[in-house]
Amino acid sequence: MRYPKPFESLITHFSALPSIGPKMAERLVLYLFKQDEEKLVAFAESLEGLKHLSSCPECFYISESERCGFCSDTTRDQTTICVVEEPLDVIAIERTGSYHGLYHVLGGVLDAGREDSTLRISELQNRLASGVVQEVILATNPTTEGDMTAYFLKSKLVHLPAKVTRIARGMATGGDIEYADEVTLTSSLTNRKELV
Amino acid sequence: MRYPKPFESLITHFSALPSIGPKMAERLVLYLFKQDEEKLVAFAESLEGLKHLSSCPECFYISESERCGFCSDTTRDQTTICVVEEPLDVIAIERTGSYHGLYHVLGGVLDAGREDSTLRISELQNRLASGVVQEVILATNPTTEGDMTAYFLKSKLVHLPAKVTRIARGMATGGDIEYADEVTLTSSLTNRKELV
Repeated sequence: MRYPKPFESLITHFSALPSIGPKMAERLVLYLFKQDEEKLVAFAESLEGLKHLSSCPECFYISESERCGFCSDTTRDQTTICVVEEPLDVIAIERTGSYHGLYHVLGGVLDAGREDSTLRISELQNRLASGVVQEVILATNPTTEGDMTAYFLKSKLVHLPAKVTRIARGMATGGDIEYADEVTLTSSLTNRKELV
Repeated sequence: MRYPKPFESLITHFSALPSIGPKMAERLVLYLFKQDEEKLVAFAESLEGLKHLSSCPECFYISESERCGFCSDTTRDQTTICVVEEPLDVIAIERTGSYHGLYHVLGGVLDAGREDSTLRISELQNRLASGVVQEVILATNPTTEGDMTAYFLKSKLVHLPAKVTRIARGMATGGDIEYADEVTLTSSLTNRKELV
Protein backbone atom coordinates (compact mmCIF):
# COMPACT_ATOMS: atom_id res chain seq x y z
CA MET A 1 0.00 0.00 0.00
CA ARG A 2 1.20 3.46 -0.79
CA TYR A 3 -0.79 6.70 -0.99
CA PRO A 4 -4.54 7.04 -1.41
CA LYS A 5 -5.40 7.67 -5.08
CA PRO A 6 -6.08 11.45 -4.98
CA PHE A 7 -2.74 11.94 -3.24
CA GLU A 8 -0.89 9.77 -5.75
CA SER A 9 -2.54 11.50 -8.70
CA LEU A 10 -1.55 14.96 -7.48
CA ILE A 11 2.03 13.78 -6.94
CA THR A 12 2.06 12.67 -10.58
CA HIS A 13 0.88 16.10 -11.71
CA PHE A 14 3.50 17.92 -9.67
CA SER A 15 6.31 15.58 -10.74
CA ALA A 16 5.47 16.36 -14.36
CA LEU A 17 6.45 20.01 -13.80
CA PRO A 18 9.98 21.09 -14.72
CA SER A 19 12.59 20.84 -11.93
CA ILE A 20 10.19 19.12 -9.52
CA GLY A 21 11.24 15.56 -8.74
CA PRO A 22 9.06 12.85 -7.16
CA LYS A 23 10.45 13.50 -3.65
CA MET A 24 9.71 17.22 -3.83
CA ALA A 25 6.27 16.48 -5.33
CA GLU A 26 5.50 14.30 -2.30
CA ARG A 27 6.50 17.08 0.06
CA LEU A 28 4.41 19.67 -1.83
CA VAL A 29 1.33 17.47 -1.83
CA LEU A 30 1.74 16.72 1.87
CA TYR A 31 1.98 20.46 2.49
CA LEU A 32 -1.18 21.09 0.47
CA PHE A 33 -2.96 18.26 2.26
CA LYS A 34 -2.46 20.17 5.50
CA GLN A 35 -3.92 23.40 4.09
CA ASP A 36 -7.50 24.64 4.47
CA GLU A 37 -10.03 23.47 1.95
CA GLU A 38 -10.56 27.06 0.73
CA LYS A 39 -6.90 27.41 -0.16
CA LEU A 40 -7.00 24.21 -2.18
CA VAL A 41 -10.09 25.31 -4.05
CA ALA A 42 -8.58 28.73 -4.77
CA PHE A 43 -5.41 27.08 -6.07
CA ALA A 44 -7.42 24.72 -8.26
CA GLU A 45 -9.57 27.54 -9.64
CA SER A 46 -6.47 29.57 -10.32
CA LEU A 47 -5.04 26.66 -12.29
CA GLU A 48 -8.20 26.31 -14.34
CA GLY A 49 -8.14 30.07 -14.85
CA LEU A 50 -5.06 29.64 -17.04
CA LYS A 51 -7.23 28.16 -19.76
CA HIS A 52 -8.90 31.55 -20.25
CA LEU A 53 -5.53 33.00 -21.20
CA SER A 54 -4.21 32.91 -24.71
CA SER A 55 -1.30 34.25 -26.69
CA CYS A 56 -1.68 37.76 -28.11
CA PRO A 57 -2.18 37.33 -31.88
CA GLU A 58 0.11 40.32 -32.47
CA CYS A 59 3.12 39.85 -30.18
CA PHE A 60 2.45 36.38 -28.67
CA TYR A 61 2.74 37.60 -25.11
CA ILE A 62 0.23 36.16 -22.62
CA SER A 63 -3.15 37.81 -23.02
CA GLU A 64 -6.53 37.80 -21.31
CA SER A 65 -8.45 39.39 -24.14
CA GLU A 66 -7.93 39.43 -27.90
CA ARG A 67 -4.81 41.64 -27.92
CA CYS A 68 -2.45 41.84 -24.96
CA GLY A 69 -2.01 44.79 -22.61
CA PHE A 70 1.09 46.01 -24.44
CA CYS A 71 -0.30 45.87 -27.98
CA SER A 72 -3.55 47.57 -26.97
CA ASP A 73 -1.77 50.32 -25.02
CA THR A 74 -1.57 53.27 -27.44
CA THR A 75 0.68 55.25 -25.09
CA ARG A 76 3.54 52.85 -25.76
CA ASP A 77 6.08 53.70 -28.44
CA GLN A 78 4.69 52.04 -31.58
CA THR A 79 7.91 52.48 -33.56
CA THR A 80 10.04 50.04 -31.59
CA ILE A 81 9.69 46.28 -31.19
CA CYS A 82 11.80 44.31 -28.76
CA VAL A 83 12.15 40.65 -29.79
CA VAL A 84 12.48 38.18 -26.90
CA GLU A 85 12.54 34.40 -26.59
CA GLU A 86 9.88 33.83 -23.94
CA PRO A 87 7.10 35.75 -22.10
CA LEU A 88 9.19 35.78 -18.91
CA ASP A 89 11.78 37.90 -20.72
CA VAL A 90 9.10 40.56 -21.26
CA ILE A 91 8.58 40.76 -17.51
CA ALA A 92 12.31 41.06 -16.87
CA ILE A 93 12.55 43.95 -19.32
CA GLU A 94 9.39 45.61 -17.94
CA ARG A 95 10.94 45.45 -14.47
CA THR A 96 13.76 47.71 -15.61
CA GLY A 97 11.23 50.45 -16.43
CA SER A 98 13.57 51.61 -19.18
CA TYR A 99 11.73 50.31 -22.24
CA HIS A 100 8.43 51.67 -23.48
CA GLY A 101 7.99 50.10 -26.90
CA LEU A 102 6.23 46.95 -28.05
CA TYR A 103 7.35 43.32 -27.82
CA HIS A 104 7.51 40.24 -29.99
CA VAL A 105 7.79 36.83 -28.32
CA LEU A 106 9.63 34.46 -30.67
CA GLY A 107 8.73 31.34 -28.73
CA GLY A 108 12.29 30.05 -28.42
CA VAL A 109 15.58 30.07 -30.28
CA LEU A 110 17.13 28.14 -33.11
CA ASP A 111 18.99 25.10 -31.91
CA ALA A 112 19.90 21.63 -33.12
CA GLY A 113 16.41 20.17 -32.87
CA ARG A 114 14.41 23.22 -33.96
CA GLU A 115 13.06 24.30 -37.32
CA ASP A 116 12.97 28.07 -37.81
CA SER A 117 9.36 27.69 -38.96
CA THR A 118 8.37 26.99 -35.35
CA LEU A 119 9.53 30.47 -34.31
CA ARG A 120 7.25 33.46 -34.97
CA ILE A 121 9.48 35.00 -37.62
CA SER A 122 7.00 35.49 -40.46
CA GLU A 123 4.64 37.13 -37.94
CA LEU A 124 7.42 39.56 -37.08
CA GLN A 125 8.05 40.28 -40.75
CA ASN A 126 4.34 41.03 -41.21
CA ARG A 127 4.39 43.48 -38.31
CA LEU A 128 7.30 45.32 -39.90
CA ALA A 129 5.85 45.41 -43.40
CA SER A 130 3.70 48.50 -42.78
CA GLY A 131 6.81 50.62 -42.15
CA VAL A 132 5.59 52.07 -38.82
CA VAL A 133 8.27 50.26 -36.83
CA GLN A 134 11.65 51.96 -37.09
CA GLU A 135 13.74 49.77 -34.80
CA VAL A 136 13.79 46.09 -33.91
CA ILE A 137 15.82 45.32 -30.78
CA LEU A 138 16.95 41.69 -30.75
CA ALA A 139 16.86 40.70 -27.09
CA THR A 140 17.35 36.96 -27.38
CA ASN A 141 19.64 35.62 -24.65
CA PRO A 142 23.39 36.31 -24.99
CA THR A 143 24.07 32.59 -25.58
CA THR A 144 25.33 30.76 -28.66
CA GLU A 145 21.75 29.89 -29.65
CA GLY A 146 20.49 33.38 -28.85
CA ASP A 147 23.25 34.96 -30.95
CA MET A 148 22.70 32.54 -33.80
CA THR A 149 18.98 33.32 -33.75
CA ALA A 150 19.72 37.06 -33.70
CA TYR A 151 21.92 36.78 -36.80
CA PHE A 152 19.33 34.61 -38.52
CA LEU A 153 16.62 37.17 -37.73
CA LYS A 154 18.82 39.99 -38.99
CA SER A 155 19.14 38.13 -42.33
CA LYS A 156 15.36 37.72 -42.49
CA LEU A 157 14.65 41.38 -41.72
CA VAL A 158 17.37 43.02 -43.79
CA HIS A 159 15.02 43.92 -46.69
CA LEU A 160 12.55 45.62 -44.33
CA PRO A 161 12.71 49.34 -43.48
CA ALA A 162 13.40 48.97 -39.73
CA LYS A 163 16.85 49.26 -38.16
CA VAL A 164 17.92 46.03 -36.42
CA THR A 165 19.87 46.30 -33.14
CA ARG A 166 21.18 43.80 -30.60
CA ILE A 167 21.27 44.28 -26.79
CA ALA A 168 24.72 45.29 -25.48
CA ARG A 169 27.29 42.85 -24.13
CA GLY A 170 29.66 43.61 -21.29
CA MET A 171 30.32 43.17 -17.61
CA ALA A 172 27.25 42.76 -15.42
CA THR A 173 26.82 45.52 -12.84
CA GLY A 174 28.30 44.31 -9.56
CA GLY A 175 30.44 41.77 -11.42
CA ASP A 176 34.09 41.03 -10.75
CA ILE A 177 36.64 41.53 -13.54
CA GLU A 178 38.92 38.95 -11.93
CA TYR A 179 36.29 36.25 -12.42
CA ALA A 180 34.76 37.42 -15.71
CA ASP A 181 34.96 34.98 -18.61
CA GLU A 182 37.12 36.06 -21.55
CA VAL A 183 34.26 36.45 -24.00
CA THR A 184 32.39 38.82 -21.69
CA LEU A 185 35.52 40.77 -20.84
CA THR A 186 36.43 41.08 -24.53
CA SER A 187 32.91 42.40 -25.30
CA SER A 188 33.24 44.78 -22.40
CA LEU A 189 36.53 46.17 -23.72
CA THR A 190 35.42 46.31 -27.35
CA ASN A 191 32.17 48.10 -26.49
CA ARG A 192 33.86 50.62 -24.18
CA LYS A 193 32.29 54.08 -24.05
CA GLU A 194 33.83 57.45 -23.51
CA LEU A 195 33.10 58.84 -20.06
CA VAL A 196 31.36 62.17 -20.33
CA MET B 1 1.90 46.28 -16.59
CA ARG B 2 2.93 42.85 -15.51
CA TYR B 3 1.10 39.53 -15.91
CA PRO B 4 -2.59 39.07 -16.64
CA LYS B 5 -4.47 38.40 -13.39
CA PRO B 6 -5.01 34.63 -13.66
CA PHE B 7 -1.29 34.22 -14.35
CA GLU B 8 -0.31 36.40 -11.40
CA SER B 9 -2.72 34.63 -9.07
CA LEU B 10 -1.35 31.19 -9.95
CA ILE B 11 2.20 32.44 -9.39
CA THR B 12 1.14 33.54 -5.91
CA HIS B 13 -0.26 30.08 -5.17
CA PHE B 14 2.89 28.34 -6.35
CA SER B 15 5.22 30.72 -4.48
CA ALA B 16 3.35 29.91 -1.28
CA LEU B 17 4.52 26.30 -1.53
CA PRO B 18 7.63 25.28 0.40
CA SER B 19 10.95 25.57 -1.47
CA ILE B 20 9.35 27.26 -4.50
CA GLY B 21 10.51 30.84 -4.94
CA PRO B 22 8.83 33.50 -7.10
CA LYS B 23 11.20 32.88 -10.04
CA MET B 24 10.54 29.17 -10.06
CA ALA B 25 6.80 29.83 -9.67
CA GLU B 26 6.92 32.01 -12.80
CA ARG B 27 8.62 29.25 -14.75
CA LEU B 28 6.14 26.63 -13.55
CA VAL B 29 3.15 28.77 -14.47
CA LEU B 30 4.63 29.53 -17.89
CA TYR B 31 5.12 25.81 -18.39
CA LEU B 32 1.52 25.11 -17.40
CA PHE B 33 0.28 27.91 -19.66
CA LYS B 34 1.76 26.00 -22.61
CA GLN B 35 0.02 22.75 -21.68
CA ASP B 36 -3.26 21.41 -23.09
CA GLU B 37 -6.46 22.53 -21.45
CA GLU B 38 -7.24 18.93 -20.45
CA LYS B 39 -4.01 18.64 -18.50
CA LEU B 40 -4.78 21.85 -16.61
CA VAL B 41 -8.25 20.67 -15.74
CA ALA B 42 -6.95 17.28 -14.60
CA PHE B 43 -4.35 19.00 -12.41
CA ALA B 44 -6.98 21.32 -10.92
CA GLU B 45 -9.38 18.43 -10.25
CA SER B 46 -6.58 16.48 -8.68
CA LEU B 47 -5.87 19.40 -6.37
CA GLU B 48 -9.50 19.69 -5.36
CA GLY B 49 -9.51 15.91 -4.85
CA LEU B 50 -7.25 16.40 -1.83
CA LYS B 51 -10.15 17.83 0.12
CA HIS B 52 -11.82 14.42 0.09
CA LEU B 53 -8.87 13.03 2.00
CA SER B 54 -8.68 13.15 5.74
CA SER B 55 -6.47 11.87 8.52
CA CYS B 56 -7.17 8.38 9.79
CA PRO B 57 -8.79 8.81 13.25
CA GLU B 58 -6.71 5.89 14.55
CA CYS B 59 -3.17 6.44 13.25
CA PHE B 60 -3.43 9.90 11.56
CA TYR B 61 -2.05 8.67 8.26
CA ILE B 62 -3.75 10.02 5.10
CA SER B 63 -7.04 8.28 4.50
CA GLU B 64 -9.75 8.18 1.85
CA SER B 65 -12.39 6.55 3.99
CA GLU B 66 -13.03 6.54 7.73
CA ARG B 67 -10.00 4.43 8.72
CA CYS B 68 -6.85 4.27 6.61
CA GLY B 69 -5.66 1.34 4.54
CA PHE B 70 -3.22 0.22 7.23
CA CYS B 71 -5.61 0.33 10.17
CA SER B 72 -8.36 -1.46 8.27
CA ASP B 73 -6.01 -4.19 6.97
CA THR B 74 -6.48 -7.12 9.34
CA THR B 75 -3.56 -9.04 7.80
CA ARG B 76 -1.10 -6.55 9.30
CA ASP B 77 0.53 -7.32 12.63
CA GLN B 78 -1.78 -5.68 15.18
CA THR B 79 0.71 -6.05 18.04
CA THR B 80 3.28 -3.54 16.77
CA ILE B 81 2.97 0.21 16.24
CA CYS B 82 5.65 2.23 14.54
CA VAL B 83 5.58 5.90 15.60
CA VAL B 84 6.70 8.37 12.90
CA GLU B 85 6.77 12.15 12.58
CA GLU B 86 5.00 12.62 9.24
CA PRO B 87 2.96 10.63 6.68
CA LEU B 88 5.93 10.63 4.27
CA ASP B 89 7.90 8.59 6.80
CA VAL B 90 5.24 5.88 6.56
CA ILE B 91 5.88 5.66 2.83
CA ALA B 92 9.64 5.44 3.33
CA ILE B 93 9.19 2.56 5.78
CA GLU B 94 6.65 0.82 3.53
CA ARG B 95 9.16 1.00 0.69
CA THR B 96 11.57 -1.18 2.65
CA GLY B 97 8.99 -3.98 2.71
CA SER B 98 10.43 -5.07 6.07
CA TYR B 99 7.70 -3.81 8.39
CA HIS B 100 4.22 -5.25 8.59
CA GLY B 101 2.73 -3.68 11.69
CA LEU B 102 0.63 -0.56 12.22
CA TYR B 103 1.66 3.09 12.31
CA HIS B 104 1.09 6.18 14.39
CA VAL B 105 1.76 9.59 12.84
CA LEU B 106 2.75 12.02 15.59
CA GLY B 107 2.39 15.11 13.42
CA GLY B 108 5.86 16.51 14.19
CA VAL B 109 8.43 16.57 16.95
CA LEU B 110 8.99 18.57 20.09
CA ASP B 111 11.03 21.63 19.45
CA ALA B 112 11.47 25.14 20.81
CA GLY B 113 8.17 26.50 19.54
CA ARG B 114 6.03 23.42 20.02
CA GLU B 115 3.78 22.30 22.84
CA ASP B 116 3.63 18.53 23.32
CA SER B 117 -0.16 18.81 23.33
CA THR B 118 -0.04 19.47 19.56
CA LEU B 119 1.46 16.01 18.98
CA ARG B 120 -0.84 12.98 18.97
CA ILE B 121 0.52 11.50 22.18
CA SER B 122 -2.67 10.95 24.16
CA GLU B 123 -4.11 9.24 21.06
CA LEU B 124 -1.14 6.87 21.09
CA GLN B 125 -1.64 6.19 24.80
CA ASN B 126 -5.30 5.34 24.12
CA ARG B 127 -4.32 2.88 21.41
CA LEU B 128 -1.97 1.11 23.80
CA ALA B 129 -4.40 0.99 26.72
CA SER B 130 -6.19 -2.16 25.51
CA GLY B 131 -2.98 -4.18 25.87
CA VAL B 132 -3.09 -5.66 22.35
CA VAL B 133 0.02 -3.79 21.24
CA GLN B 134 3.19 -5.38 22.51
CA GLU B 135 5.83 -3.14 20.94
CA VAL B 136 6.04 0.54 20.07
CA ILE B 137 8.91 1.34 17.70
CA LEU B 138 9.89 5.00 17.96
CA ALA B 139 10.88 5.97 14.42
CA THR B 140 11.16 9.75 14.80
CA ASN B 141 14.15 11.13 12.87
CA PRO B 142 17.62 10.54 14.35
CA THR B 143 18.01 14.28 15.06
CA THR B 144 18.22 16.17 18.34
CA GLU B 145 14.50 16.95 18.20
CA GLY B 146 13.63 13.41 17.11
CA ASP B 147 15.66 11.93 19.96
CA MET B 148 14.20 14.33 22.48
CA THR B 149 10.70 13.45 21.31
CA ALA B 150 11.52 9.74 21.55
CA TYR B 151 12.69 10.10 25.17
CA PHE B 152 9.64 12.20 25.99
CA LEU B 153 7.37 9.55 24.46
CA LYS B 154 9.15 6.80 26.37
CA SER B 155 8.41 8.68 29.61
CA LYS B 156 4.75 8.99 28.61
CA LEU B 157 4.40 5.30 27.72
CA VAL B 158 6.41 3.74 30.52
CA HIS B 159 3.34 2.79 32.58
CA LEU B 160 1.72 1.01 29.63
CA PRO B 161 2.23 -2.71 28.92
CA ALA B 162 3.99 -2.32 25.53
CA LYS B 163 7.76 -2.53 25.07
CA VAL B 164 9.21 0.72 23.68
CA THR B 165 12.07 0.48 21.16
CA ARG B 166 14.01 3.02 19.10
CA ILE B 167 15.27 2.50 15.53
CA ALA B 168 18.97 1.59 15.31
CA ARG B 169 21.79 4.09 14.78
CA GLY B 170 24.94 3.40 12.85
CA MET B 171 26.69 3.86 9.54
CA ALA B 172 24.43 4.17 6.51
CA THR B 173 24.86 1.38 3.97
CA GLY B 174 27.26 2.61 1.28
CA GLY B 175 28.66 5.24 3.67
CA ASP B 176 32.33 6.08 4.14
CA ILE B 177 33.91 5.71 7.59
CA GLU B 178 36.47 8.37 6.70
CA TYR B 179 33.74 10.96 6.34
CA ALA B 180 31.30 9.76 9.01
CA ASP B 181 30.54 12.23 11.81
CA GLU B 182 31.72 11.22 15.28
CA VAL B 183 28.25 10.73 16.73
CA THR B 184 27.27 8.30 14.00
CA LEU B 185 30.58 6.46 14.18
CA THR B 186 30.30 6.18 17.96
CA SER B 187 26.77 4.74 17.64
CA SER B 188 28.05 2.37 15.02
CA LEU B 189 30.80 1.11 17.30
CA THR B 190 28.65 0.94 20.41
CA ASN B 191 25.90 -0.97 18.63
CA ARG B 192 28.30 -3.44 16.99
CA LYS B 193 26.98 -6.95 16.39
CA GLU B 194 28.79 -10.27 16.40
CA LEU B 195 29.21 -11.71 12.93
CA VAL B 196 27.63 -15.14 12.73
